[in-house]
Amino acid sequence: MAGTPGAPVTFDDVTAAAARIVGEVERTPTARARTLSEITGAEVFVKFENLQFTASYKERGAPNRLRLLSPGASGVVTASAGNFAQGVAYHAGRSGIPAVIVMPTTTPALKVSRTGALGAEVVLRGRDFDESAEIARGIAEDTSYELLSPFDDAEVIAGQGTVALELFEDVADLDVVVVPVGGGGLLAGMAVATRALHPSTEVVGVQSERYPAVHRLIHGGSAAGPAEVVPGGATIADGIAVAQPGRRSTAIIRALADRIELVPEDRIEEAVALYLEIEKTVAEGAGAISLAEILTRPDRYRGRRVGVVLSGGNIDLRQLASVTLRSLVRTGRLTRIQVEVDDRPGSLGLVTTHVGDLGGNIIEVAHQRLDPTVHTRSTEVELSIETSDRRHLVAVLDGLRDRGHRVRAVDRRRDDEEWR
Amino acid sequence: MAGTPGAPVTFDDVTAAAARIVGEVERTPTARARTLSEITGAEVFVKFENLQFTASYKERGAPNRLRLLSPGASGVVTASAGNFAQGVAYHAGRSGIPAVIVMPTTTPALKVSRTGALGAEVVLRGRDFDESAEIARGIAEDTSYELLSPFDDAEVIAGQGTVALELFEDVADLDVVVVPVGGGGLLAGMAVATRALHPSTEVVGVQSERYPAVHRLIHGGSAAGPAEVVPGGATIADGIAVAQPGRRSTAIIRALADRIELVPEDRIEEAVALYLEIEKTVAEGAGAISLAEILTRPDRYRGRRVGVVLSGGNIDLRQLASVTLRSLVRTGRLTRIQVEVDDRPGSLGLVTTHVGDLGGNIIEVAHQRLDPTVHTRSTEVELSIETSDRRHLVAVLDGLRDRGHRVRAVDRRRDDEEWR
Repeated sequence: MAGTPGAPVTFDDVTAAAARIVGEVERTPTARARTLSEITGAEVFVKFENLQFTASYKERGAPNRLRLLSPGASGVVTASAGNFAQGVAYHAGRSGIPAVIVMPTTTPALKVSRTGALGAEVVLRGRDFDESAEIARGIAEDTSYELLSPFDDAEVIAGQGTVALELFEDVADLDVVVVPVGGGGLLAGMAVATRALHPSTEVVGVQSERYPAVHRLIHGGSAAGPAEVVPGGATIADGIAVAQPGRRSTAIIRALADRIELVPEDRIEEAVALYLEIEKTVAEGAGAISLAEILTRPDRYRGRRVGVVLSGGNIDLRQLASVTLRSLVRTGRLTRIQVEVDDRPGSLGLVTTHVGDLGGNIIEVAHQRLDPTVHTRSTEVELSIETSDRRHLVAVLDGLRDRGHRVRAVDRRRDDEEWR
Repeated sequence: MAGTPGAPVTFDDVTAAAARIVGEVERTPTARARTLSEITGAEVFVKFENLQFTASYKERGAPNRLRLLSPGASGVVTASAGNFAQGVAYHAGRSGIPAVIVMPTTTPALKVSRTGALGAEVVLRGRDFDESAEIARGIAEDTSYELLSPFDDAEVIAGQGTVALELFEDVADLDVVVVPVGGGGLLAGMAVATRALHPSTEVVGVQSERYPAVHRLIHGGSAAGPAEVVPGGATIADGIAVAQPGRRSTAIIRALADRIELVPEDRIEEAVALYLEIEKTVAEGAGAISLAEILTRPDRYRGRRVGVVLSGGNIDLRQLASVTLRSLVRTGRLTRIQVEVDDRPGSLGLVTTHVGDLGGNIIEVAHQRLDPTVHTRSTEVELSIETSDRRHLVAVLDGLRDRGHRVRAVDRRRDDEEWR
């Protein structure tokens, strides 16, 4: 049986999981993304796992595992601060199975309350995932509750593998599938199914370069990423920021996946923004990382039929707003510019009129009188302006200079740009 | 023939349109929205027209009309600053039909460039839609290009009516359908189809109370909306901010729709935010107005099976970010608070530590030394804090007061809240 520790996960396990969870989870759509295909040069097919009820693929493994509890289990216990917590809480609740979810004390209150609202008992203990996992293990030992692993359990892996079954049902002839990797459960399950259904399809896993654990295990420590990137720290792909991936999942990945790639944070942000603006859909960072990989290495995918898994949509609204605004900045559509003006009545009116004449839309104005690089009889006005693209921005800047203003664009990565 | 001016639009016209546009437009999904149903108390089914290629239902009328051009027409001309422009540009381009789109000079540059990128010739003339429409009419008279109306053309109306065919194919027994209304084309077409397929289903149109033109025509001027709301001005539902609705469309609406409702702007914003946070989908203001109606008048829909048309997803990214942040403010998850502190080293550290102890996450800090209501030896610190909900916010405020701070929450609608 696949549930035996160490036993491999087979294609039969995946198809059995599919039969078990039918009706329990959404049969999500796959769509050819026309504009994303134009942008990337690849033929991009998106599997929308963010349309699951709790907005991630984690729901697939949960009900499959819950149907296979040992006879003596009177409930389940697991540790998770994220999507697996909601998946287990929701499906355990539907099946009337008591569930205890151990969440780190640092878990945002909203995630705690959502998991609780789905019917699980939330235990807030442990400073991080590893500590919470240890506490969950203790609860399982002390009670008749069965311990579930978010990604290192054969039946969870088999459940996640059903994503690939549906993907190939919708698009048979994919050249490559690109899959987010944290603990490795989704990639392992999809690799099993892909190897069985379409042995020649390339299977690629993707991680943030800040959390390259599986990449290190598979490709070796020295190839863990660009030398200048120090692993750890903040990531927009918090759903796959896993330090200790699964042993079972990584063994499968090593055997069946073709390669693991690392992508930088700004590409992940860009992918989230593209999903929002073009596909009109909400992806969390981890969910957008497959698209980020294609943006990072377009040459590898150009002209090929690529299946990307949009694995989840649980992104904090404030973070989503921030990603959106930063995307406008990156694409030259929202820019802070600084203009040096004489410190007398009418100066501001003149500058803002000129910006308007040039088609720039001013959305914010700030005065700064303490900048030592500005002449003492002048003052610096900072304007946030909207332009249609980078070319338009340059035209506005040039136009202001033509009209006699000293002006510079403020770029956070290059705050030292010269006045001219 | 339905194209004859004044002739009614029949159910046969709608089914004929469906046959003509199959393969030309997306067959969009309808989904039962579980969480939105819980929130509203209605059983909500969402028709996702934002998943059309140009992200709105306007694409349906366009190809239907383009297939029925008079033999002498060598191209088409229309006026639109919005979704109809993109729908016509895209489908004319696909069919190799030359298209001229007259857009008001005030049209955002991005919309101009997008419409041009779809293959249409864009003429930037006219200060508003009415002037651009006049210019389009002149072009049609001077050339062999045929004039298309965005909403007052029988074949356009018949095309939009296909939304209802698909909706009832997916969910047969709807008690009511709730439809956005601007020029009236979508509601007219859907009313024709609904009356034929399910005569007892209620048909409701929705407008922003700032643009109540169809409501006035149908329900009379005196019932145009809350007395305190002056029509006009900025609206988040710019896609349906139509001053002159169609004659043909309103005649159909008068005959076949049950009622037109007006909703306030803040409800539309709330609906956009709910679609984003819960359904993980991007709705423009006009596209979210059906949901806004259910939020505005929940008693009318409670326990009923309601079909809502999410008619479009073309919202400016900056506006989407703004709606998102305002939604966090409205729901007590993001709040500016002002704290009066002694003007000496260490004060700020003390306040921010206390906020952290109470579980509030500080995301921005500003000092304000010019507030005349603050004692001259004190200074005012403004903190933007994240809390999990309104109850948590109140707990943070109370906790700060218990710790000896003078504090107030800043609400933009009540900037005069007292210090205490």
